[in-house]
Amino acid sequence: MALIIQKFGGSSVADTERLFRAAEIIARTFREGNDVVAVLSAQGDTTDRLIAQAAAVNPDAPPRELDALLATGEQASVALGAIALKKLGLEAVSLTGWQAGLLAEGPHGSARAARLDDSRIRAELAKRKIVLVAGFQGINAEGDIATLGRGGSDTTAVALAAGLHADLCQIYTDVDGIFTADPRVVPDARQKQEITYDEMLELATLGAKVLHNRSVAIAKRFSVPLEVLSTFSGRPGTMVHGTPEAGGNAVCGAALERKIVRIAITGLEDTPGAAYRIFALLGREGIAADMLQASMSGGKTRDVVFIVPEKDRRRCEALLRENREALRFEEVAVRTDLAKVSAVGVGLSGNPAVAAQLFSAFFDAGIRIHMAATGEIRISVLVDEADAKRALRAVHAKFFP
Amino acid sequence: MALIIQKFGGSSVADTERLFRAAEIIARTFREGNDVVAVLSAQGDTTDRLIAQAAAVNPDAPPRELDALLATGEQASVALGAIALKKLGLEAVSLTGWQAGLLAEGPHGSARAARLDDSRIRAELAKRKIVLVAGFQGINAEGDIATLGRGGSDTTAVALAAGLHADLCQIYTDVDGIFTADPRVVPDARQKQEITYDEMLELATLGAKVLHNRSVAIAKRFSVPLEVLSTFSGRPGTMVHGTPEAGGNAVCGAALERKIVRIAITGLEDTPGAAYRIFALLGREGIAADMLQASMSGGKTRDVVFIVPEKDRRRCEALLRENREALRFEEVAVRTDLAKVSAVGVGLSGNPAVAAQLFSAFFDAGIRIHMAATGEIRISVLVDEADAKRALRAVHAKFFP
Repeated sequence: MALIIQKFGGSSVADTERLFRAAEIIARTFREGNDVVAVLSAQGDTTDRLIAQAAAVNPDAPPRELDALLATGEQASVALGAIALKKLGLEAVSLTGWQAGLLAEGPHGSARAARLDDSRIRAELAKRKIVLVAGFQGINAEGDIATLGRGGSDTTAVALAAGLHADLCQIYTDVDGIFTADPRVVPDARQKQEITYDEMLELATLGAKVLHNRSVAIAKRFSVPLEVLSTFSGRPGTMVHGTPEAGGNAVCGAALERKIVRIAITGLEDTPGAAYRIFALLGREGIAADMLQASMSGGKTRDVVFIVPEKDRRRCEALLRENREALRFEEVAVRTDLAKVSAVGVGLSGNPAVAAQLFSAFFDAGIRIHMAATGEIRISVLVDEADAKRALRAVHAKFFP
Repeated sequence: MALIIQKFGGSSVADTERLFRAAEIIARTFREGNDVVAVLSAQGDTTDRLIAQAAAVNPDAPPRELDALLATGEQASVALGAIALKKLGLEAVSLTGWQAGLLAEGPHGSARAARLDDSRIRAELAKRKIVLVAGFQGINAEGDIATLGRGGSDTTAVALAAGLHADLCQIYTDVDGIFTADPRVVPDARQKQEITYDEMLELATLGAKVLHNRSVAIAKRFSVPLEVLSTFSGRPGTMVHGTPEAGGNAVCGAALERKIVRIAITGLEDTPGAAYRIFALLGREGIAADMLQASMSGGKTRDVVFIVPEKDRRRCEALLRENREALRFEEVAVRTDLAKVSAVGVGLSGNPAVAAQLFSAFFDAGIRIHMAATGEIRISVLVDEADAKRALRAVHAKFFP
């Protein structure tokens, strides 16, 4: 008998039919003799609907109150889940974040799961009940409901798995698992049987969107065995763990991020900390700059280039222009219509042949490269938006022939 | 400066416009220098919608889970209320039942407000915050959410007023206050300035539907001054308190209850406790029999007659037939299409002239009376459903000429 945590996302519980499909997976796991704690998200677009309702009342809603409002979505899901399991003849108990003992810290709207008081969950499991826990929410030191931010139900599941020392944490979603690339863009992408936490973290950050990266970071920290699998297909998923695949490919997958903007700052005064001040300013405002590159130091000025997501462009430009005097640079140039293609893999570390293979893939396909940057376990290349899909396919074909 | 509890029902917070109307009443009361604790119901038909959603999943939903589901409606209302008050420039804090410290006892779905741990509310009031409390819900000894049953937000408001020793408990609704009769049936019904708890209890039980009777009973027990008034008209409402109106009418109001069924049990064995066993059985099943009458004792058998609401008829009949042997009677006869008209007033006690006036009203109007029963402060008369409205108007015209 194992203790298994199962998480079902919003699309997996969107309506009564889907709710029962999730309930049947839970029921099967329980009937196989396991203890089951299931984490449910709000149904379908409930969270977006509640956000819109609050915005109609007051676009500047207090975050504490927005959290109290949004948390109702997951509370309703788990109650309905328990009602569905009863229909299947099983005893389940729904718990809100505070009932489950999930203690949260940090700002409303993006709190983090800090600690688990597992007494209630343990007591219910001891009674052989299936425990359903409302995702995305915890209780803070003030006794208030705090939400964990978007993707927060993944975090809830992994935090429960860590706190309860679960044997497995299954993330049920609407895809079969993690693929070597997005199958909607690369038709011959293959599902991976396994992947390391670090690779998953890079892929999550790079827009694979299957798992929230905060949840992967927690899973890595507490060595929680994760499985990503489909609510609908019944096929085996992808295991995420700490051990690299033996004899595997150097590259584990390729990712594409579209709607990228390159920002070039020219004539920056060449003094110590000049570039740092720019990225510190953007970081404070929550703008994640990537692929930072600076021209060689030595003259009176230098240039700094980086990329940001299109959605942050206006805010980033405005911030830079407002602070031009203080930051001491001459000009900001913006180039839009770009995309970022990345190859990720623990095998990339200290393996220069991979970079050479990557560039040859672009050369062979006649795709122009604007910038390239290498990280510990990834190489990213900036291409024209018009070449985006072709570039991803070329990279994928090179490493997964 | 006073401490005022204000309760707004579902129709008073049904949409954003109405929510702001309620928020403005709260804001005005607060700005006049009072401490304000407001209790909100779920918006519009939210509760009915959630019940239907649960029934679609499982018609036999576990009551604990139904409570967890339904409680989300009020939680959303108070969060939205705090968001609206912020828009009006005021600091409010929304509290769920458990956050407000409302401890509930008894079965899920019809728990009672047993005790208030007022520490959180007091702390928020001390910070000069407006406190919004989710109606209809409390937390039980198991740490579970328990709802107080229909009309439960009235109970929440009165229980908070009692626990906090509030100066006034205002129940905002969609009517102007308590009337001498239902104005939809009796066009010249007049609004009452004041009414006693006992009169209000009889009227609530008899279907005046403005206040839930459990809330009136708590108000009476703890001498909470109640005011019933309109969210929309801005006019003064009706005060409910313990002191009879000086020099007032013997009759305070008239009430009509439709869809009444008369049940006659004939041939009941005339032994001590025979009638008691019948009513104990019905009471255990939650069927409220009224206007009980028994024929004189002395022979071998006797007859017992009483009325029940139409909605309880099938269950009542089935119960009686199933237990015919044990209860020792011969037959059950049912008569439908009846209505009950009542006159209520503390002045009725020991005043036989009122009964005479009532019967003369029916006689003058040519309305046939099937049964009559007198209580401490009310007289009820059973008439044909077809005569219902005419009967109410006749009684009203007699006592409020």
